[in-house]
Order: sequence, then structure tokens, then C-alpha cells
Amino acid sequence: MGGDVGPDVVVPAAHSALEQNDDLSIILVGDESILNQAIGRYKAGTHDRLHVHHASQSVEMDELPSHALRNKKDSSMRVAINLVNDGTADACVSAGNTGALMATSRFVLKMLPGIDRPAICTAIPSISAHTWMLDLGANVDCDAEHLLQFAVMGSVLAKAVDNNEHPRIGLLNIGEEEIKGNEQVKQAAQLLSGSHLNYQGYAEGDDIYKGNFDVVVCDGFVGNISLKTSEGVAKMIARFIREEFSRNLLTKLAALVTMPVLKAFRNRIDPRRYNGATLLGLRGIVIKSHGGADALAFASAIKVAVVEVRESVPERISKQLESYLRHRQAI
Amino acid sequence: MGGDVGPDVVVPAAHSALEQNDDLSIILVGDESILNQAIGRYKAGTHDRLHVHHASQSVEMDELPSHALRNKKDSSMRVAINLVNDGTADACVSAGNTGALMATSRFVLKMLPGIDRPAICTAIPSISAHTWMLDLGANVDCDAEHLLQFAVMGSVLAKAVDNNEHPRIGLLNIGEEEIKGNEQVKQAAQLLSGSHLNYQGYAEGDDIYKGNFDVVVCDGFVGNISLKTSEGVAKMIARFIREEFSRNLLTKLAALVTMPVLKAFRNRIDPRRYNGATLLGLRGIVIKSHGGADALAFASAIKVAVVEVRESVPERISKQLESYLRHRQAI
Repeated sequence: MGGDVGPDVVVPAAHSALEQNDDLSIILVGDESILNQAIGRYKAGTHDRLHVHHASQSVEMDELPSHALRNKKDSSMRVAINLVNDGTADACVSAGNTGALMATSRFVLKMLPGIDRPAICTAIPSISAHTWMLDLGANVDCDAEHLLQFAVMGSVLAKAVDNNEHPRIGLLNIGEEEIKGNEQVKQAAQLLSGSHLNYQGYAEGDDIYKGNFDVVVCDGFVGNISLKTSEGVAKMIARFIREEFSRNLLTKLAALVTMPVLKAFRNRIDPRRYNGATLLGLRGIVIKSHGGADALAFASAIKVAVVEVRESVPERISKQLESYLRHRQAI
Repeated sequence: MGGDVGPDVVVPAAHSALEQNDDLSIILVGDESILNQAIGRYKAGTHDRLHVHHASQSVEMDELPSHALRNKKDSSMRVAINLVNDGTADACVSAGNTGALMATSRFVLKMLPGIDRPAICTAIPSISAHTWMLDLGANVDCDAEHLLQFAVMGSVLAKAVDNNEHPRIGLLNIGEEEIKGNEQVKQAAQLLSGSHLNYQGYAEGDDIYKGNFDVVVCDGFVGNISLKTSEGVAKMIARFIREEFSRNLLTKLAALVTMPVLKAFRNRIDPRRYNGATLLGLRGIVIKSHGGADALAFASAIKVAVVEVRESVPERISKQLESYLRHRQAI
């Protein structure tokens, strides 16, 4: 329980998740006394499926992952991941330092066989439903083989969560002729074309939002910049809408009349509903919540964990990889 | 006059640009008879500052740049760039094949001394005004030195067009600790820190829209994906707004009341107003219009050319580079 999101977010989020899932139990990991105080502050109070597990340390948001790994062996993050590793918990949800969460998860849980690196994956709203995008920042430099592994993992996630039997995979690239793509992307396209995945070709930046693809694969540098760019555009547009509606008395009146429409619109692109990115490729389920999440957003991240546990995502990735490797050997 | 944008877009755009600029002359390059017919169709008809220059060929939108370069020596694109090269014209504006435009410009006009590669640069609307971003797709792989050259060119453009004496330069990067950036970006940051530019550090994807930076520098792969991502988000949001307003009679009524506000909002982010990307680094001015531009958008691209001619952008880039090189030798 480190980071920007404190018990006042996590406790109500846990309560709401418990209310919605009868077979869910939650273990809050962190400073016992602080957590118990927070639980006491909420009406719902204690819950028979809400438990507290003490951890004496916490990882700072700006702490170097290597430092956290060496010096924070009793941090809430480390202890929570240990609980997944020893089978006490089925998944870990954290709003903490992304780098530390990834390094610690990788160190404690280890990678699935056949996966070299974890990737950060999340669902991004699109015109038709949503697009799974990975990697969103775990890996700066990726070779073609990594991109292929991301495609396998993203495909499994789309299958598991959306009941989508043949997720359409796209490889993020640019559209200019003759300079089309860098070497890694071109090689990854060849690997994907030869795979048993439903590879649909190159996706351009705007395809993420068009709904042409169910999974869009890219390296973490490009993915992170694309995701942050999207946040920037959406925030600017929201601000412009607010400004135009508060320009004068007449526009303010128009805002009143339009309120239900604007609310419906806001709900539709509410980033809180899309909170909860999966650290894919680990031998266990770890979900990263946005650092600035509120209770509603954090509850979304818990929901992601619930679905992935129910659908045995890591096990399915393993199986899919085995079948891919068999397929490749057969060629 | 090849590509998606035909004379029915270019002729009215030229007319409107001529009306707005008394010292402007325009030479339409393409099939003489088609152009003269198009000119005849418009009310304004001929204009004493509107000329036609015949070219017998045109470059197709999907033609390989190398093919165009070898086989289309009398294409409208090649002839228009020749006119810039021999001093008949001060700038070339084209909505044609980007790759061919770049290759032909580079071949005919040559690069400015000290610049290795051209970069595509445009102004992107931000919360405060706009951000100049480059490269947007000319160069897939860039080293640190290229990124530095882009920063110099972007800085000159921001100075020239916005009268901004000290444009704030940002280097596009991702925010994760310890995995911060790839090698090129880290090296470019060092070069920029040691330069005489007003380098402000790393920019994340959302900073493009926040107005914290006047110029954001990145390689063409990342830049193109970021730009296209932005287009995708904006289009999705516009569609969601339309859908919410057309849901039922009540929301349609709300749309009527809100029309002036929605229009003001739409104007503010109208991509046509931002049409016209500069191919920076050449010994001449070449502006690329969006392939799907209408007359209003194409007129914006002409306006960009007018400003860059007036401000002698290529000459200023040369001077700035010289002063940078002196600065570097002095260290």
C-alpha cells in the first residue's frame, strides 16, 4: 500500500468489489494499523471476506526498481506478490511504482516458459468496443520475437476476456511507402504471417480507435507514447468542450440542457472504466492500477484481476505458446 | 497535380489564397487543359496572379518514390520542385505521395549543409496554442545527431512563424524510471543539454497537447504513430458526441440548442486549419498538404508556404546551424 493511492481509495474499492463478487476474497497488504483504521472509517466496516496482511515497508513512486528489489523485502508490493507466489492469493493489484512492480513480479513469480519479457497490456476504448494494446511501456527495445510473443499473449487475453475466438492481430506501423516500418516490425510481420494467429497486417495509429483490430502489438516505447498521446488529446478536447460551454450565459444555459448528453458521452470514454493494465507473461496475475486512481477506477482494476483469475490467463498463455511452438516446428 | 486532391480543390484554394495575399502569385503545375478547364469552372475565373505550367505526367499515390524519381521526370510534382530549384517559384505545395515528394525534393533541391535528412514538421493544436512536432514520418530510424538537427530546425520554425524568441524544446520519451528512453533518446538529451537551444527535457506523449513545450522532437516512426493516434482519438470522440446527440428526440433537441457551442468547439480543433506540413532541411520550401484536403485545408497549406517564404525559413535554419556548430566547437 505505497504510492499515490492510499487506503482511502483501496478500502472502498475493495468493499465495492466484494459486494459485486460473492466468491471474491481480498487481502489488503500494508501497514496493519493504518489499514485497520481506514477499514474502521467506512460504513461497510469489516467484511468477512476482507483481510489485512501486514507489511512494514512501502515502495516510493520515484524509487528505482533495483533499489526496491534490494532494500524493500517487506514492502506491501513485495509481500503482495509473495502471496501470489505461495498460492495464498490468486492475483495482485497495485497502484504503485510500475517499474518496481514489474521488476519485483518478474523476480518473484518468474516468466512463463517461452516468454522473454513481461508486457503491459490494457483494453483501450474503440468505436466498436475496445482494442487490447501491448506493450505499453515495459520494454523499450523489442526484437521481432518479442513482438510475436506479445501477439500470442494479447490474443489469449482477448480470447479469455472477450470470448473472442479469433482475435484480429495488428502490428503497429507507419503508412509511408518504401520507408514502411523499421526492421523489427518488418521481421515481426513475417513471423506473424507464418504463425497460427489471426494476423491481419499493419495497424496505423488511428486503427487503435477504429475497431479494425482486437489486439495491436508494438514495442513499449511506441506503445507508451501512443497511450499518453491519447490521454493528452482526450484531456485537451474535454477542456475545450468545458471552455466553450462556460463562455457566456447562453452557452452555460446550453450546457444545462445538454447535461444528460454530456454525461452519457463522458461515461463512455471515462478512463476509470478502463483502469487496470495486466503485466502479461508472468507465472501469476499482476494488475497495475493507474497511480491516480479513485475508488471507482481501482475497483475496475480489481475486476480485471477477477476475470483473469477466472479465465486462468497465465495457464492459457502457456498452452497457446506450446501450440505455437509445435506449429513452428512443424513448418 | 496528381494524387487525391484534384484541380477542383486546388483552384478554389489558390483563388482564396490570392485574395488574401496581394503579393502572392501562384503557378498551378499539371495537365494544362485540365487546369484551364477547372479555372474556367470557377466564378472568380482567371486571376492575373494565377498561372498554369504544363506537366505531362503525375505521380500516383501508391507509386514507389524510387519509381517516380526514375520514370516521372515530367510529373507535376517534379516540375513544381524544379520551379523552386531554378528560382521561378519560392515554394512548392503538394498533396501528392509523401514518399515521392520527399525523395524528389531531396534529389532536386538537396539538403541544407549540416542537415543529414529532411524531417516532416507541423503545428499541432495544444491547450495554449500549438506545438511544433517533428519528425512525423520521414525517418524511421534516427540517431541522436539527427534528433538534434530536428530540434534546431523545429526551433527555427517556431521562432520564424510564432515570433517566439526562445522556443521550449522537448524530447519525446516515456516516463518509466530506470527504463527511461532508448539509447538514441538518452544520447540526444545529452547533445541538447549541451546546445544553445532552449532544451527543457523529456516530453511525454500527453505533453504535446499540454502546451508545456513549443517544439517536440522524436523519430519519424514514433512521431507518425503519435500523430495518427491523435487523429484516431479525435475522430472517435467526435463520433461519440454525434451518436449521443442523435440518440432520441430529446438529445436531438439538445443538439439544436447546443449547435453554436458545438460549432465553436469544432472550429477550434478543425484539422483543416492545421493542414500543411513542412519538409524541413531542404534548400527550398516544400509543403505537404494532407491527401484528402478540401479547398479550405489546401488554402491553409498555401498559407504555411507564404509564411515560410516571408520568414526565409531555410536560410534561417542554415544560420542557426552554423551558430550551433560554432558553439559546439567552442566547447
